[in-house]
Amino acid sequence: MKHHQYALTPPIGWNSWDCYGATVTEEEVKGNAEYMAKNLKKYGWEYIVVDIQWYEPGAVSSAYRPFVPLEMDEYSRLIPAANRFPSSANGKGFKPLADYVHSLGLKFGIHIMRGIPRQAVHQNTAIFGTNKSAREIANTNSICPWNTDMYGIDPKKEGAKEYYHSLFQLYANWGVDFVKVDDIAASTLYGTNTDEIMLIRKAIEQCGRPMVLSLSPGPAPLEHASLFVENANMWRMTDDFWDIWELLYQMFERCYKWSKLVGPGYWPDADMLPLGRIGVRSVDGGASNRYTRFTKDEQRTMMTLWTIFKSPLMFGGEMRDNDDWTLSLLTNEEVLHVHKAGYSARQIYRENDKVVWSTKDLEGNLYVALFNIGETTTNVSVSLNELDCIKPKKMRNLWDKTDLGTVEDRITFELKPHASIFVKLSN
Amino acid sequence: MKHHQYALTPPIGWNSWDCYGATVTEEEVKGNAEYMAKNLKKYGWEYIVVDIQWYEPGAVSSAYRPFVPLEMDEYSRLIPAANRFPSSANGKGFKPLADYVHSLGLKFGIHIMRGIPRQAVHQNTAIFGTNKSAREIANTNSICPWNTDMYGIDPKKEGAKEYYHSLFQLYANWGVDFVKVDDIAASTLYGTNTDEIMLIRKAIEQCGRPMVLSLSPGPAPLEHASLFVENANMWRMTDDFWDIWELLYQMFERCYKWSKLVGPGYWPDADMLPLGRIGVRSVDGGASNRYTRFTKDEQRTMMTLWTIFKSPLMFGGEMRDNDDWTLSLLTNEEVLHVHKAGYSARQIYRENDKVVWSTKDLEGNLYVALFNIGETTTNVSVSLNELDCIKPKKMRNLWDKTDLGTVEDRITFELKPHASIFVKLSN
Amino acid sequence: MKHHQYALTPPIGWNSWDCYGATVTEEEVKGNAEYMAKNLKKYGWEYIVVDIQWYEPGAVSSAYRPFVPLEMDEYSRLIPAANRFPSSANGKGFKPLADYVHSLGLKFGIHIMRGIPRQAVHQNTAIFGTNKSAREIANTNSICPWNTDMYGIDPKKEGAKEYYHSLFQLYANWGVDFVKVDDIAASTLYGTNTDEIMLIRKAIEQCGRPMVLSLSPGPAPLEHASLFVENANMWRMTDDFWDIWELLYQMFERCYKWSKLVGPGYWPDADMLPLGRIGVRSVDGGASNRYTRFTKDEQRTMMTLWTIFKSPLMFGGEMRDNDDWTLSLLTNEEVLHVHKAGYSARQIYRENDKVVWSTKDLEGNLYVALFNIGETTTNVSVSLNELDCIKPKKMRNLWDKTDLGTVEDRITFELKPHASIFVKLSN
Amino acid sequence: MKHHQYALTPPIGWNSWDCYGATVTEEEVKGNAEYMAKNLKKYGWEYIVVDIQWYEPGAVSSAYRPFVPLEMDEYSRLIPAANRFPSSANGKGFKPLADYVHSLGLKFGIHIMRGIPRQAVHQNTAIFGTNKSAREIANTNSICPWNTDMYGIDPKKEGAKEYYHSLFQLYANWGVDFVKVDDIAASTLYGTNTDEIMLIRKAIEQCGRPMVLSLSPGPAPLEHASLFVENANMWRMTDDFWDIWELLYQMFERCYKWSKLVGPGYWPDADMLPLGRIGVRSVDGGASNRYTRFTKDEQRTMMTLWTIFKSPLMFGGEMRDNDDWTLSLLTNEEVLHVHKAGYSARQIYRENDKVVWSTKDLEGNLYVALFNIGETTTNVSVSLNELDCIKPKKMRNLWDKTDLGTVEDRITFELKPHASIFVKLSN
Repeated sequence: MKHHQYALTPPIGWNSWDCYGATVTEEEVKGNAEYMAKNLKKYGWEYIVVDIQWYEPGAVSSAYRPFVPLEMDEYSRLIPAANRFPSSANGKGFKPLADYVHSLGLKFGIHIMRGIPRQAVHQNTAIFGTNKSAREIANTNSICPWNTDMYGIDPKKEGAKEYYHSLFQLYANWGVDFVKVDDIAASTLYGTNTDEIMLIRKAIEQCGRPMVLSLSPGPAPLEHASLFVENANMWRMTDDFWDIWELLYQMFERCYKWSKLVGPGYWPDADMLPLGRIGVRSVDGGASNRYTRFTKDEQRTMMTLWTIFKSPLMFGGEMRDNDDWTLSLLTNEEVLHVHKAGYSARQIYRENDKVVWSTKDLEGNLYVALFNIGETTTNVSVSLNELDCIKPKKMRNLWDKTDLGTVEDRITFELKPHASIFVKLSN
Repeated sequence: MKHHQYALTPPIGWNSWDCYGATVTEEEVKGNAEYMAKNLKKYGWEYIVVDIQWYEPGAVSSAYRPFVPLEMDEYSRLIPAANRFPSSANGKGFKPLADYVHSLGLKFGIHIMRGIPRQAVHQNTAIFGTNKSAREIANTNSICPWNTDMYGIDPKKEGAKEYYHSLFQLYANWGVDFVKVDDIAASTLYGTNTDEIMLIRKAIEQCGRPMVLSLSPGPAPLEHASLFVENANMWRMTDDFWDIWELLYQMFERCYKWSKLVGPGYWPDADMLPLGRIGVRSVDGGASNRYTRFTKDEQRTMMTLWTIFKSPLMFGGEMRDNDDWTLSLLTNEEVLHVHKAGYSARQIYRENDKVVWSTKDLEGNLYVALFNIGETTTNVSVSLNELDCIKPKKMRNLWDKTDLGTVEDRITFELKPHASIFVKLSN
Repeated sequence: MKHHQYALTPPIGWNSWDCYGATVTEEEVKGNAEYMAKNLKKYGWEYIVVDIQWYEPGAVSSAYRPFVPLEMDEYSRLIPAANRFPSSANGKGFKPLADYVHSLGLKFGIHIMRGIPRQAVHQNTAIFGTNKSAREIANTNSICPWNTDMYGIDPKKEGAKEYYHSLFQLYANWGVDFVKVDDIAASTLYGTNTDEIMLIRKAIEQCGRPMVLSLSPGPAPLEHASLFVENANMWRMTDDFWDIWELLYQMFERCYKWSKLVGPGYWPDADMLPLGRIGVRSVDGGASNRYTRFTKDEQRTMMTLWTIFKSPLMFGGEMRDNDDWTLSLLTNEEVLHVHKAGYSARQIYRENDKVVWSTKDLEGNLYVALFNIGETTTNVSVSLNELDCIKPKKMRNLWDKTDLGTVEDRITFELKPHASIFVKLSN
Repeated sequence: MKHHQYALTPPIGWNSWDCYGATVTEEEVKGNAEYMAKNLKKYGWEYIVVDIQWYEPGAVSSAYRPFVPLEMDEYSRLIPAANRFPSSANGKGFKPLADYVHSLGLKFGIHIMRGIPRQAVHQNTAIFGTNKSAREIANTNSICPWNTDMYGIDPKKEGAKEYYHSLFQLYANWGVDFVKVDDIAASTLYGTNTDEIMLIRKAIEQCGRPMVLSLSPGPAPLEHASLFVENANMWRMTDDFWDIWELLYQMFERCYKWSKLVGPGYWPDADMLPLGRIGVRSVDGGASNRYTRFTKDEQRTMMTLWTIFKSPLMFGGEMRDNDDWTLSLLTNEEVLHVHKAGYSARQIYRENDKVVWSTKDLEGNLYVALFNIGETTTNVSVSLNELDCIKPKKMRNLWDKTDLGTVEDRITFELKPHASIFVKLSN
């Protein structure tokens, strides 16, 4: 499928949600983009994504404010709030900001909610290029369970397709490279919104600009796996992920269940990395302004799982506040090589809270991650036979960049609770 | 419970939905009220109920028109559309019409949707007697699955209770005797809205006027039976009922399941009687302007089941078009006596499509209904022993008003498909 | 319904499960019967019930032993294990023991599992009074999820009805007054076994001896409430109940949901009372030989809820080990009067963890129970208006048997966590 | 994973179920094997599979006979009924028959039910190589919903693993190449039996003989896709498939949902092909001895879907009764090439009842199947652009082996109801 070409390796970048909730400003976006260009671009990091509510002038945290007015153009399309994104004034939209991000050698992404603004429906505003109005294409009883901004679109209505085309045409004009569509992959009210996913797929193809399509929120149901693969580049396996061990613990099961549905251009998504300084103006995840609550062991465990599974990596912290440790998690070339070049990752086994995964690259190297996700220190072990390789192998610790000698038969590590080790096996 | 006093026998009356959908006018309501006063009042019929959308000036059928403007007062309360209810103009509301109905010796009822108008929320209008506004009390993500007029109310918000009080105060001022609240007993999105049911119960108690409380739509879940009994007078056991055999067939199971939850003041509701001329301006039930599609056998079967079960009886047809047959179904004193005086009705047995119910009155008479709800003529039979009565009994056909001699041991009738017989057994 | 006559007030008695699990012996049953005759009979206690596995010679605790041989007669009917019930030897069954219990002025009950022994099916033994054999009437794929003794019966098979008749004929011959049928009211595999419930109802009617029918386990689904009322005298609202606060806490919600389905002869059942010495040879409920783990406050709270709701009362402890406190819970005539004479009990309100119930008797007395089921001391309060009574009332503490003066308007008590108070209001 | 090597292309062969139900004999198996060797082997057909109940001497049709005795060795392992498989007498098991099938250049498969015979549990027979007995390893309450032969195995019990090892050791000794395990991929009682799937995977690896592992029945839940891929070679997407259009219609949706989970060694399975003479001694599928009820159009539609999706192909008819038409469906090299060499098949689109699939081979050919699964003749069409290929292409009808000229832009065919066309596009 053509759209798989837009993300042949899992996207890696930055997203404003974990630090700024619904409130990020142009200045903050630019600041993080500059940081990425300077410190991370050379390692492959490339996306700068503005998350939800950029069209809401009065947003104050991660908590949604019901029924407030949003910035909208005459064609029922939301546009950036000029008080927060000054360069967008006078109908310029995100074009100036996207241009700036591009000038740094990076890519620019935005978040949208599926559907059409409720305010457009109640004001019955126009749909670009049609003689239809918002009221005529809204799906009368399709709402988001957690945000009051939008009604869904009824795909059977004349004008529905044109509305989505007009949206993505606008985004293409702005220079958007990545779109995270929300309230679409799962909904406690309606399940997966398959119709709108297909409308959006077509709108992207028609807009003439390649854009990575990311679907939220999760957990996206496995039942619709084929639909996600056929229409998107990434989709969330999980509800919002935060720096809470229980959520990380559950991710192992999620990754296992989705592990046969990972491939070039389609990436089940374990959600953003709540690392470094987060919660600056967000109160989600049961906390506020802080350094991540994950311990260092947990941070490496998370990075290792995301890497071997090939989840997209979207850093959630205010990057300009990164300390050395945090930066070290994002700049380990050997780990990032696995993220980029690994294929056919699989869980070798799970016995209660001992979990072993492996993957390989085209040069014949094998990568093995051993996890102790239980609450007591324990040995975790795997044999070369279980890994389907029998020759003695040289072993190297990827995070520590240290060589560990030769393995004849079996790898065994004593691991503290929540700790892991990530090794490379080569000839 | 006090509110059970408001309906010690199951309410019987007329409702505008089956004939006029969302469009009934004052003239039509008055015409039917006059017909009832003249022809039916003496048999006990008393409620005249205006169904949904009386606040929508442009309603044209039973199909809801999404997002259209509704008539509303300054306090976010819907009021009658003056073009349809001329006497309501100048802030009089339903008071003149209710007065007229009362002058005929009848009672007046209205239908409402739970919640607050979406237009009030988007305009952020005031809540009577508070310094709150609509946006502050709306349950941000609670909608009706089939109608776009309202948002639900969040009971935890300050002003929520006051809003419902202001509604029922208004209805009390109008002289309303019966309120059918919709989108509350069941919802494909949210199940039963228990919080708003309790808010409404309290609002009625506080308004100072007894009002029968009817909850829709169905099927109301048995799981919440105690809540319904504690808070309402009637609640729908079924989704909308129409003149379709399959729906009538299913009602036998529904009545059986609810049969232990019928008592003075609390009446599980089998929905309106789609008899006589219906569909005048309604397109629901897959048909339009017509005489009921039920055969005469089916009509008696329906009336017999509703009667023995003690469902409320709400006639759905344009009464002024009643023919003699239809009128005969509503004016059989012997049948209506069972409806009023029967107690402890129960299904004696069901064997596939043979069904037998019985009930009794305080004078010691026994009433037995035998149904053939299958597709072939068959004998349906029950013994005096199964009915827990052993003496020989005199038997009388209630619908035909004919005596059928003495029963020594067993009642047996040959019944055509969909037919039934309803008999009285006395000493 | 005739069978409602067999238990016009909720049954009260003793059951062997909580103390002896699957292992009770004749000696222990007789000892408890003698205790009841001497100490409790005058207060109304009357049933002595032998719980599960009385047909298993080698039972050792409450844990079921899979696939072990059971004592069975030539007609596929289980009979008492003679090593445990010596008087049953030589084909006498439970007759001698029942006779003894009757001689004490008490009634005798047994527990059975629905269905036919698997060993009968695999040996293909005979069915009494038919030319059918066990294999021909077994429901091939109907088992109990937690016990390997039985297969279900297929009601459509010839011989099925006769098998159940032969069982209850045998029990009638023995002199059984009460039958608790298990694996029938709920099953994690098959839901409620409605067919076998109806077979058993008929078998009891035909056996010529009135027997109270109790259905287990729970939670029996409300969906089938009418079926339970029509066919049984009591049915479990809950899975096995033990001396664990969380289970008692949940019972308040269960009682509320079933509160409209309590009446003369049909009693939703909150399960046995794990009071006094329990766990003698039972390891269920996560504990072994002990005095109940409930605090005194919790014990009164439990007794009060069971009483006002009119649950059957089946004491679960080894009665001969009762201390004074425990005995006092079973011999308070004023409380037992409410259990026997109360009607139309209802939950007046529940606000988080404050719960108030009331009931009344035919002499016009009102009984009110106020509960604090939260974790902090709090005031619980109710007004005479909420209780639908307006005159000043005299108030009396039922458990303490103390007068509390006159109530003008409102009752308020400060209650410790898990505590309650049970008062009588009279003129 | 190593076991994927055992079936790098989807298995194709014959299975006895559709024609002989539970009753096939050695003579019939040999006859079909000889037919295959002579007529089909050169096209790649290779498996001869004996379906269920080969251990039941008295099997008479496809209907299971409850609780009948089965042939079993001293170690609780079922063995062939010697009256049906004479060469198996004297403890030889299936070895002579497997040897014969091998001598024809074919492979030999058997069907088993998960678990241990109930008769072993009730007789408490031994487990090979252990001091455990059947009763000790049975999962006490795990049964098959539709067959009374077995209890499940409790993987936590000592001896459980050894029992499965002893089974597969026996099958390895016999020379079994393919095992279809039933009551394991889905169960209306217990869902997917993940534990026993993993036990069986390990038992196969340990037995030293490569065996293809096929899991039944369906529908296997997508939720467990990763488990199936990791442990099996094929698993049923569907409940039993028969020559009924509705079942074929539904298969399109099933194939779409599983289409991203097909790869070398793991093959979602659309079930056997009910073609030719079927129902010889089977009464399943609502019919008996017959030629397939599918029309010729439907037969090609089925073969085309199975082929392009790469479902295993297991012919269900008595092959010796094949007519020329039936044989032609199995011997079209061009179609079989797609089945063997196609990869990355996908549904291009589905619009109501128009469905288009495509796949490709490593030589760069594209294969397109257009289906009309509706009830009226219609045009079905797809553009080269939608197929992600833009050059003009030569088109060839695969079933008819006719060239259809050059396609410039779009393929369109008028298709009768239930008909399809299968074309090759090449440069």
